[in-house]
Amino acid sequence: MDRLNLIKDLSVTNNTKMVLLVLDGLGGLGLEAGGKTELETANTPNIDLLAESAALGMTDPIMAGITAGSGPAHLALFGYDPIKYAIGRGALGAAGIGFNMQENDLAARINFATVDNDGLITDRRAGRIATNESSQLCELLEKVEIKNIEIFVKSVKEHRAVVIFRGSELSDKLSDSDPQKTGVQSKEVVALDECAETTAILVNEFIHKAQNILADKYPANAILLRGFAKKPGLSQMKDVYKLHAAAIAAYPMYKGLAQFVGMEILPTGGSIREEFETLRTNFNRFDFFFIHIKATDSSGEDGDFDRKVSVIEEVDKNLALITDLKPDVLAIAGDHSTPAFLKSHSWHPVPFLLHSKYCRPDDVKHFGETSCSRGGLGKFPALDIMSLMMANSLRLTKYGA
Amino acid sequence: MDRLNLIKDLSVTNNTKMVLLVLDGLGGLGLEAGGKTELETANTPNIDLLAESAALGMTDPIMAGITAGSGPAHLALFGYDPIKYAIGRGALGAAGIGFNMQENDLAARINFATVDNDGLITDRRAGRIATNESSQLCELLEKVEIKNIEIFVKSVKEHRAVVIFRGSELSDKLSDSDPQKTGVQSKEVVALDECAETTAILVNEFIHKAQNILADKYPANAILLRGFAKKPGLSQMKDVYKLHAAAIAAYPMYKGLAQFVGMEILPTGGSIREEFETLRTNFNRFDFFFIHIKATDSSGEDGDFDRKVSVIEEVDKNLALITDLKPDVLAIAGDHSTPAFLKSHSWHPVPFLLHSKYCRPDDVKHFGETSCSRGGLGKFPALDIMSLMMANSLRLTKYGA
Repeated sequence: MDRLNLIKDLSVTNNTKMVLLVLDGLGGLGLEAGGKTELETANTPNIDLLAESAALGMTDPIMAGITAGSGPAHLALFGYDPIKYAIGRGALGAAGIGFNMQENDLAARINFATVDNDGLITDRRAGRIATNESSQLCELLEKVEIKNIEIFVKSVKEHRAVVIFRGSELSDKLSDSDPQKTGVQSKEVVALDECAETTAILVNEFIHKAQNILADKYPANAILLRGFAKKPGLSQMKDVYKLHAAAIAAYPMYKGLAQFVGMEILPTGGSIREEFETLRTNFNRFDFFFIHIKATDSSGEDGDFDRKVSVIEEVDKNLALITDLKPDVLAIAGDHSTPAFLKSHSWHPVPFLLHSKYCRPDDVKHFGETSCSRGGLGKFPALDIMSLMMANSLRLTKYGA
Repeated sequence: MDRLNLIKDLSVTNNTKMVLLVLDGLGGLGLEAGGKTELETANTPNIDLLAESAALGMTDPIMAGITAGSGPAHLALFGYDPIKYAIGRGALGAAGIGFNMQENDLAARINFATVDNDGLITDRRAGRIATNESSQLCELLEKVEIKNIEIFVKSVKEHRAVVIFRGSELSDKLSDSDPQKTGVQSKEVVALDECAETTAILVNEFIHKAQNILADKYPANAILLRGFAKKPGLSQMKDVYKLHAAAIAAYPMYKGLAQFVGMEILPTGGSIREEFETLRTNFNRFDFFFIHIKATDSSGEDGDFDRKVSVIEEVDKNLALITDLKPDVLAIAGDHSTPAFLKSHSWHPVPFLLHSKYCRPDDVKHFGETSCSRGGLGKFPALDIMSLMMANSLRLTKYGA
């Protein structure tokens, strides 16, 4: 039986409140062999106090050795198998700019690119044109007219943009126009099954008209499309978990991911304190809250060990804003590791803390990589976090008699 | 998505060097309750020094409680699901004697056996005849002539041998002739699907002619065939991992297993020192090295606790021959446990050590069963070893955006 169906069968409602606090890219590395990680370096008296009556462990975002992108990593946190439910690049891109995709929308990633007089690609990134330039080009491309289709073209950053086609019976079974190399022409978009044939025609029509508009816009005189995707048809949290769930996130990508599983997105200020205050003001309205802290990841990506330490300490300083609300279940997790040492996401397991009245505390009293690897929860897939939280809020009934 | 396909999608090449050092049957048991294991008894200052800046853990060769044979245990070490990819007994037998199977070869295990005047089996092992006797019988059986088929019959040890049929369109969908009990006649080999019918006929013809040759060779006056198998069609390491991989092993079985996944087999002396020197002289030629040490297992199988301790200490004494080469990733693993106390393979998890610049060292500083069970890697399937090594050599790109 499918995991989500099992949980759907077992889940019940009650009055408990759950908070899943996600520190993006939480896991780290020491700067030298045997050195402390960012989290181990941070002074976290409040989290450690919580750890005394919590169960700790380490989560594998996807599987051993696999470095997770934000999309699959968050699907796992929400309890959706990240190998089974892939979110197409186009849909993730739309989520990333906060575009609210509708059921039949078709999205694709755009690269502005440079082609020579023969149409051969000379630069797949159009010299990484500035974001304000690509924004202007996007506005021009949005004026392309295709019969019965509404078109949205939105800049992401530099040469990156997203196009969304809105119409009936659009299919995402399409090949990319982006050949992923230079020295060749961009490709025709080809239907990968019969039902996609009319969609292929209109997408190629869009590309053709767009190229005409861009002809004199060197270096951004072409576009390359890839990752055609419709809104992922994920089961909704209200159905699977019977939860009224809300997301508190400042970055569009994470709002988009939360929206894909049916969370309500709460307007919020972007600082840690503001996000925690958003929790407080909405605490009575929902059963489940996903709070997303981005700065742990971005400081890790920047290779800024000290800043990542500070961000963790700031979370700790503001923790009372959450604990004072006395949620029945509080989980502190990361979607993946982002060690400053690597300046990128990594495959390393991520510290995890679960606090509830029923969590069977272990004897680990510090929230850190080495200590959590000795925690009572052991090392387990991040995919299990939601079922653990549900169990600890007594929202899952017995399986079998 | 299939695990190997996922890794194939994510793997990239670079200039790193990886060494997987396998101490066959590494895991052990104490001789009395609470006693130290072979590994814990051994004096291993060099491995322990490595442990200080390494991540440690325990691997489950197949799954909890399952005792692994060499075939599945090594498939797991190489990252191939040992439940999904079974290597037939015949193919494993051929690998075990260093027979290089070709694409269309069909192999089967032979037992020399004893039958009475009515053809009823009285001894399935022909009184465990000496190896030199069975070798002579194999030479006779190799003279059997079957139209369009080349036949190889090779002695393994005592009453055990292997037959390989070489021809076109041979099938391994065949039942055994070995009834696995005495007091009955050997069985006709039966085709298990239509395509195997001509193969069944020629195999039965071989058995019939062989019995005629053996009629006066009491006690080895019959043969029993089982485990018909073609060469396993495993994805090759160069395709899955994009690795140029080499195997350093003295025993034919392990060379055969390595060959099945596409490793190049390096000629080597059989002592630990000689094997490590083979690594040194070939270090520039490959990305990945599998080094196989057999004596830990054979001493365990012999129930010789002290000899197993000595073998481990000899590995430790020679370790600098590996570490001086400064491989980017060095893993020390076992394929399964072979406690001298049990004189056989066992199901117990196996100590594992992973050393790399990015391995997130834990605070375990000794390589032993009890200490490794507290290591930062936790307990995990041996199947994950290759993806961990690939990650630590930065050869796996991110999954999902």
